[in-house]
Amino acid sequence: MKLTCEPLTATAFAPFGDVLDCAGAPDKMINAGLCGRYHDRAQLDFGSDGRAGISVFRAQARSLPYTCDLLERHPDGSQAFIPMSADPFLVIVAEDNNGPVNPRAFLTAPGQGINFHRGTWHGVLTPLAEPGLFAVIDRIGTTPNLEESYLEEPLIIDSDQ
Amino acid sequence: MKLTCEPLTATAFAPFGDVLDCAGAPDKMINAGLCGRYHDRAQLDFGSDGRAGISVFRAQARSLPYTCDLLERHPDGSQAFIPMSADPFLVIVAEDNNGPVNPRAFLTAPGQGINFHRGTWHGVLTPLAEPGLFAVIDRIGTTPNLEESYLEEPLIIDSDQ
Repeated sequence: MKLTCEPLTATAFAPFGDVLDCAGAPDKMINAGLCGRYHDRAQLDFGSDGRAGISVFRAQARSLPYTCDLLERHPDGSQAFIPMSADPFLVIVAEDNNGPVNPRAFLTAPGQGINFHRGTWHGVLTPLAEPGLFAVIDRIGTTPNLEESYLEEPLIIDSDQ
Repeated sequence: MKLTCEPLTATAFAPFGDVLDCAGAPDKMINAGLCGRYHDRAQLDFGSDGRAGISVFRAQARSLPYTCDLLERHPDGSQAFIPMSADPFLVIVAEDNNGPVNPRAFLTAPGQGINFHRGTWHGVLTPLAEPGLFAVIDRIGTTPNLEESYLEEPLIIDSDQ
């Protein structure tokens, strides 16, 4: 199944998670007016028996067209990805209906991170440039917190160009 | 008082916080071996009445030599800064002795973020390049969570070159 990347906007991504960027006006200016704070932009949820942690992921860069044959989700917690370089990355998500349905692909702009809401189906981390370095804010806990779904028909994701 | 930037290493920064980078071997390879996870690298502490949040900060870029006349700390929570571009930034910290003492300045390498431990004296966010964009993982709560200390003698921070 062919999918074309959509640009990542807060509205389009709202069913799946939060866009972390500095679009619009800051909620507050701090540090004598030299810094804008865009406050508390992610819906974090680590369940009753988990806690927040910050990990660093380093993933191999991919290229378009990209073939995706596996989606996963974390039933026990949200998961945020903050790119540590100003490079776009690919974000693949799907709705749930006893498994992933209606997949969509988003291409971030430089300066955008994302937070997957708890339980959102998504593809694995797919940077499109080296070094593929991300800070990840997700649930630290003792449960496996992972469901995987192999796709009968792989997704072939390409840009709109 | 003149201060020379030190390179940011986990050992040198340990009294003040955590370095968030991909130094060394990953704790785990995930995603069929295509991604390294450097697991749970920050000592997060949001107190009993706070919670974790992700905000985005956009700060005006500064240059060296940089004059610092204010240090601050957050008594109720840790605060992590993840740069969203591969640019170094300046990290100013101090020990506590009923106020900040023995200040030090660190210069990050591209791909390094930091987490200030709860209560650590630090300077305001000082990127050295545009766009000055950072994801900030800190405490969301109802207390002011801010102490400021104006320095009688400003710090003048420069590189070692």
